[in-house]
Amino acid sequence: MTQDIAHAITELGRRARAASRDLMVASDQAKSAALLAMANRLESQRAELQAENARDLEAARQNNLEPALLDRLTLSDKALNIMATGLRQIAAMPDPVGSMTASTLRPNGMRVGQMRVPLGVIGIIYESRPNVTIDAAALCLKSGNATILRGGSEAFHSNRALGRIIQAGLADAGLPEHAVQVIDTTDRAAVGHLITLTDYVDVIIPRGGKGLIKRLSEEAKVPLIKHLDGNCHVYIDHAADIDKAHDIAVNAKTYRYGVCGAMETLLVHADIAPVALPRIARTLLDKGVELRGCDRTRALVPEAVAATEEDWATEYLAAILAVRIVDSQDEAMAHIARYSSGHTEAIVTENLDAATRFQRHVDSSSVYINLPTCFADGFEYGLGAEIGISTNRLHARGPVGLEGLTTLKWVLTGNGQLRG
Amino acid sequence: MTQDIAHAITELGRRARAASRDLMVASDQAKSAALLAMANRLESQRAELQAENARDLEAARQNNLEPALLDRLTLSDKALNIMATGLRQIAAMPDPVGSMTASTLRPNGMRVGQMRVPLGVIGIIYESRPNVTIDAAALCLKSGNATILRGGSEAFHSNRALGRIIQAGLADAGLPEHAVQVIDTTDRAAVGHLITLTDYVDVIIPRGGKGLIKRLSEEAKVPLIKHLDGNCHVYIDHAADIDKAHDIAVNAKTYRYGVCGAMETLLVHADIAPVALPRIARTLLDKGVELRGCDRTRALVPEAVAATEEDWATEYLAAILAVRIVDSQDEAMAHIARYSSGHTEAIVTENLDAATRFQRHVDSSSVYINLPTCFADGFEYGLGAEIGISTNRLHARGPVGLEGLTTLKWVLTGNGQLRG
Repeated sequence: MTQDIAHAITELGRRARAASRDLMVASDQAKSAALLAMANRLESQRAELQAENARDLEAARQNNLEPALLDRLTLSDKALNIMATGLRQIAAMPDPVGSMTASTLRPNGMRVGQMRVPLGVIGIIYESRPNVTIDAAALCLKSGNATILRGGSEAFHSNRALGRIIQAGLADAGLPEHAVQVIDTTDRAAVGHLITLTDYVDVIIPRGGKGLIKRLSEEAKVPLIKHLDGNCHVYIDHAADIDKAHDIAVNAKTYRYGVCGAMETLLVHADIAPVALPRIARTLLDKGVELRGCDRTRALVPEAVAATEEDWATEYLAAILAVRIVDSQDEAMAHIARYSSGHTEAIVTENLDAATRFQRHVDSSSVYINLPTCFADGFEYGLGAEIGISTNRLHARGPVGLEGLTTLKWVLTGNGQLRG
Repeated sequence: MTQDIAHAITELGRRARAASRDLMVASDQAKSAALLAMANRLESQRAELQAENARDLEAARQNNLEPALLDRLTLSDKALNIMATGLRQIAAMPDPVGSMTASTLRPNGMRVGQMRVPLGVIGIIYESRPNVTIDAAALCLKSGNATILRGGSEAFHSNRALGRIIQAGLADAGLPEHAVQVIDTTDRAAVGHLITLTDYVDVIIPRGGKGLIKRLSEEAKVPLIKHLDGNCHVYIDHAADIDKAHDIAVNAKTYRYGVCGAMETLLVHADIAPVALPRIARTLLDKGVELRGCDRTRALVPEAVAATEEDWATEYLAAILAVRIVDSQDEAMAHIARYSSGHTEAIVTENLDAATRFQRHVDSSSVYINLPTCFADGFEYGLGAEIGISTNRLHARGPVGLEGLTTLKWVLTGNGQLRG
């Protein structure tokens, strides 16, 4: 049985590699036509999709899935419209493939430049939301990559139906249907095999909870573009504007508790804390945020409970905030260096030197001046789309758009120069 | 014992991480001063270095090491001069760290750009040549990375002495001495532990034979910037200039047999083969190159032996060349897609469309027009230095210079913009 699955997944990989050869040099015209055809089919084949989705919803209800998860699983008219709009937006974006960097002319007259090319074959492993099937396939296709998709078992029928829509859209545009393949089994062994297929898969992008990501990191032989923790900090400098500090801190925590860019620890300079902190705390407490503070914080904010060592290291993703008062910017940066997950950190200050030092010294994938950490998002950065946020240091770091799904090859042009 | 080594290597990693925090923001002035101090010490402490080197040479002779390897192991005056010159050249290069990409201004007024920053801590695992100790440490230091070096056991005393020179140079310039550490044991368990230290090591760069690279790829948890095969192709198009084709093919094969960019298979269009191939073959045979050809090649070049399927897939790194006649450029590109290791391929043609198609369609880290594949080298590309050539698709691909040892972080500047 497991042997059969290994064989089936290898075949999937082999076909993806073959399709990726065509996709690599496919015109943007063809790729965009496929995306538009998929959008049209999402609308015209709505009834069929919703019938398949109903099978997943029925099973989910029987398994007593939480209402919030049921909601994310549902392919409502609205959800399908959003997916179709997303496809049309991606179709309209500029194709990153084939663009050239500036080139240099070497002393011997040969020209050296780099051309942007697709990564090749991308495996996407994700949990319940079926819209990822469309979003991820679209971004990978636009950037010239073949894709192997493996969604959650809860969305099995929905994803399979969406896979048929995608392959029909590819065929409409004359592109190989194996450019996007949905894994047609819920057996876990399929994922276990996929992440070791280094001959056929160039990168795996997991989207899901930390448990999934950690397990895949342990077992994968194929490189991952992955997102681990988002333990993000805002530091309010003594030279901060009090109003900005208040608004930025409140927005960073309460824009949405569940996003990876949400602030989890607030650091406040001791000189400004007596003025700034009680006001920020008041607003957060009124919004129902639990505060966990150091002793000096608790002296200013009696409602705060005592923070433990563990609090500094925790990504709550909830209405909880750790708060610490520090005596200097260096102390704030040392706290960040020790506890941050390297995702996104911000300073609030009106002082140029403090801002410049913070941006240069803090070693996170995004470093902000006078902005809330919740801006960590590809759309906000102007990438036009986002496949996820990477906490890797190599290759794509931070929000990953179309360019993060490509790489560069060296391109040299001469007229018979020889070496040596 | 193994437990002790794991503990010692973890400590090394912890100290490297701490040093890397300082190095990340060290000025180029300090980094270059350290490199110049090392160069001066290589010259002034020559006697001490050569005494340590003599211990390695004595052991090597007792172990009947081959003369070529003995030669590479020797820290002659000339070898030390070359190393000192290399250090001064790297010191004079522009610092990649801290430079900013072009930035965009978002509709809400916040500015989004990227800053080039070091990767962090780099582990270098290499075989016998002790000059790698200096070269690798210098490139990593210039690009702001802390380094952990593990050379071959044959060069143990030499590398330890070079490590002392490096750390003294760092101290001369006021930089942390743990910025560069040489592993002080020949126990293999040290490497086995180093490549799993994901908390303290950001990337491993192995330099050595395929056996080493494959073993490390299997076992590493830390990402590798690695070089596997260089099965490189030259394709002579029917529209090639016969003289250029001859010179490029001969140079690509005979510049040096042992370099990874050496041509291993020559593909010749059937229309030009009767004129071009016998002449190229004559020159190569005269230089002592063994030819292994397809049937049509052997009809034109009787000296060629019959090539087998295995020949097309082999990186000889020797005076052997596989030769195949093809009926079209598509057939040549299909051969390359099937057998190439994705390192470097070249087309010889005077036809613009053939050249453009080749550059776009061939999926290798370097693709050349009218140049021999042996140009695959960071110095030739104008990178100023090279830590190696990467056959990875993610992050650095092809020759890796200083920039390949860095990454980008997002840097956003606002004045209180909020989200949502």
